[in-house]
Amino acid sequence: MATVLSVSGSPSASSRTGRLLRHLDQRLAAQGHQVIPLDVRTIPAEALLGADFRHPAIVEATELFDRADGVVVGTPVYKASYSGVLKALLDLLPQYALTGKTVLPLATGGSVAHVLAIDYALRPVLNSMGAAHIVQGWFTLDKDITVREDGTLALAPAAAEALTPVVDQFSAALTGRTPVLAAAG
Amino acid sequence: MATVLSVSGSPSASSRTGRLLRHLDQRLAAQGHQVIPLDVRTIPAEALLGADFRHPAIVEATELFDRADGVVVGTPVYKASYSGVLKALLDLLPQYALTGKTVLPLATGGSVAHVLAIDYALRPVLNSMGAAHIVQGWFTLDKDITVREDGTLALAPAAAEALTPVVDQFSAALTGRTPVLAAAG
Amino acid sequence: MATVLSVSGSPSASSRTGRLLRHLDQRLAAQGHQVIPLDVRTIPAEALLGADFRHPAIVEATELFDRADGVVVGTPVYKASYSGVLKALLDLLPQYALTGKTVLPLATGGSVAHVLAIDYALRPVLNSMGAAHIVQGWFTLDKDITVREDGTLALAPAAAEALTPVVDQFSAALTGRTPVLAAAG
Amino acid sequence: MATVLSVSGSPSASSRTGRLLRHLDQRLAAQGHQVIPLDVRTIPAEALLGADFRHPAIVEATELFDRADGVVVGTPVYKASYSGVLKALLDLLPQYALTGKTVLPLATGGSVAHVLAIDYALRPVLNSMGAAHIVQGWFTLDKDITVREDGTLALAPAAAEALTPVVDQFSAALTGRTPVLAAAG
Repeated sequence: MATVLSVSGSPSASSRTGRLLRHLDQRLAAQGHQVIPLDVRTIPAEALLGADFRHPAIVEATELFDRADGVVVGTPVYKASYSGVLKALLDLLPQYALTGKTVLPLATGGSVAHVLAIDYALRPVLNSMGAAHIVQGWFTLDKDITVREDGTLALAPAAAEALTPVVDQFSAALTGRTPVLAAAG
Repeated sequence: MATVLSVSGSPSASSRTGRLLRHLDQRLAAQGHQVIPLDVRTIPAEALLGADFRHPAIVEATELFDRADGVVVGTPVYKASYSGVLKALLDLLPQYALTGKTVLPLATGGSVAHVLAIDYALRPVLNSMGAAHIVQGWFTLDKDITVREDGTLALAPAAAEALTPVVDQFSAALTGRTPVLAAAG
Repeated sequence: MATVLSVSGSPSASSRTGRLLRHLDQRLAAQGHQVIPLDVRTIPAEALLGADFRHPAIVEATELFDRADGVVVGTPVYKASYSGVLKALLDLLPQYALTGKTVLPLATGGSVAHVLAIDYALRPVLNSMGAAHIVQGWFTLDKDITVREDGTLALAPAAAEALTPVVDQFSAALTGRTPVLAAAG
Repeated sequence: MATVLSVSGSPSASSRTGRLLRHLDQRLAAQGHQVIPLDVRTIPAEALLGADFRHPAIVEATELFDRADGVVVGTPVYKASYSGVLKALLDLLPQYALTGKTVLPLATGGSVAHVLAIDYALRPVLNSMGAAHIVQGWFTLDKDITVREDGTLALAPAAAEALTPVVDQFSAALTGRTPVLAAAG
């Protein structure tokens, strides 16, 4: 079992990105991982923007990254790149906060035209932080994510079908680092 | 004469990026431009991170972009890219907030190894916002920027020599868009 | 009147990219520019791949770039980036072969998912070559480009409508650099 | 034991990139891997540039990629990116030629200012080809690579020291995919 930090970088309370990550968390948990959700928007704004590495909320976020074996990084695509809110958190972490970790990059957006933002914008940042293994990510269209009245999420069938192997290869990459489990599986 | 918005994207109050931009503002002003300084860190944090496009501070920043003929965008390089604080502001502007505008991208950082962050990370974002002309930018090493006791800035001679033509070509590109003045000059 | 070098970076003889550029050349010529077409695939392969800067075909291509006021750079998108054939030519030009020049980047591809390749892959290369002004580019879907039996090209109406202002702003940026003509216009 | 294809993308016969890869091949071989060297410049130019997927040299290169568990991709940095020659080969491979494979990206260049070309230019291309795991790469300065009179290579001590863990983590990532060996080790 691995510890997974699942980070939503959306600034919006009703975010599709956030709901999508919490939905995928369930699949990771069902596969035996301990999943810790983190919505960047719940970190106090003055901590994120104040460049104060010693703020308790930043210290706590840093510890969450430190303890994780794997990190899911989800972001809406704004202006052809990741959200500023997400980057504001990453800026406050140690330079090599992802050393030794397996990372799954995910993005959501209004148009397929933004797909390459994952590989050209988000991945170089994650790589600069020392990530050991950034698995193939995935981009989900906003229109394929519906939030039901009870707050749960409905994914369009094709989107759900595409995300399943993406989450599973992340899960496999995590357990690949713990050979005993791999052998047991 | 053009109106220039000079935006520092550093989260730090004692920022080299901010001091550098305010220093270059003087040269632009001496060339006849009206220069309006904007330090993103002076915008209330809850406005920047709250995804609230109607917050008075965001409405005001949007108007500053709207009125500008040219925009200087300065950022420290963190994790191989622009600062999250800068991107948080850009995220709150209209998608095409740079339409018709001339833009000068500048960055500061601790190592020459970060130079390409301007062209690979910052430019695509500025371009997605409809910029008419993003002139050649420049990267200045932190060690070449010294803040004197009186708060003014001293640039290493080689850095100062490199920045002068960069600012001047931006200035020329601005006046190139106002042919009458160009003819008079 | 400006001199425009119109470079197609497709390795294919029946290339949509090449046909599209030759089609747009006509509009530029009708606006008074002298347009020189260059299909990279017509340069001898051993010259392109032999790293021989003194090969007559490379010397000639270098002179064409040198004489141009503006350069149209068109490429198919392969593997999320520009073609290797196009880059092989650019590699053999002087580092600052685009200094002082206005550049229009264009791409063609099978999916809208490749749109960002222009801004994240092609632009940084053109910028490293000293381009004075890289105007907003455009991506055209393969399916919107039909080659008629007589070899001429038919563009889907929406694609044609989108390309017209793209070519025209490039043309305007070119003449913006020749103030007498601009004043006359 | 894994099969490693070691691809040099330099167009030059006396290439530092090529010599560096052949030097590192020895370390991989000593760790028990079967290493197959491939210098793109030895592939006939007309095959690389002719867009002919059925050319015997392209068919053979495709089979080499197909058989490999891991691929070392080395390139000089030209114009802020990988070489056109390397990309010309990648363009002729199937879209997902790197599916399931572990990849080590390496670059050489004249200035530290080009370091980010690995992560912003080369990695997105390798990722678009389906790579399972692109490990942390490395950039080596030209001046740290000396070719002795007998054709062998001398690396500056600091460069050699930096490359050793880079090659070893690639080797470990390869064997991580072959659990029996991992368990034995």
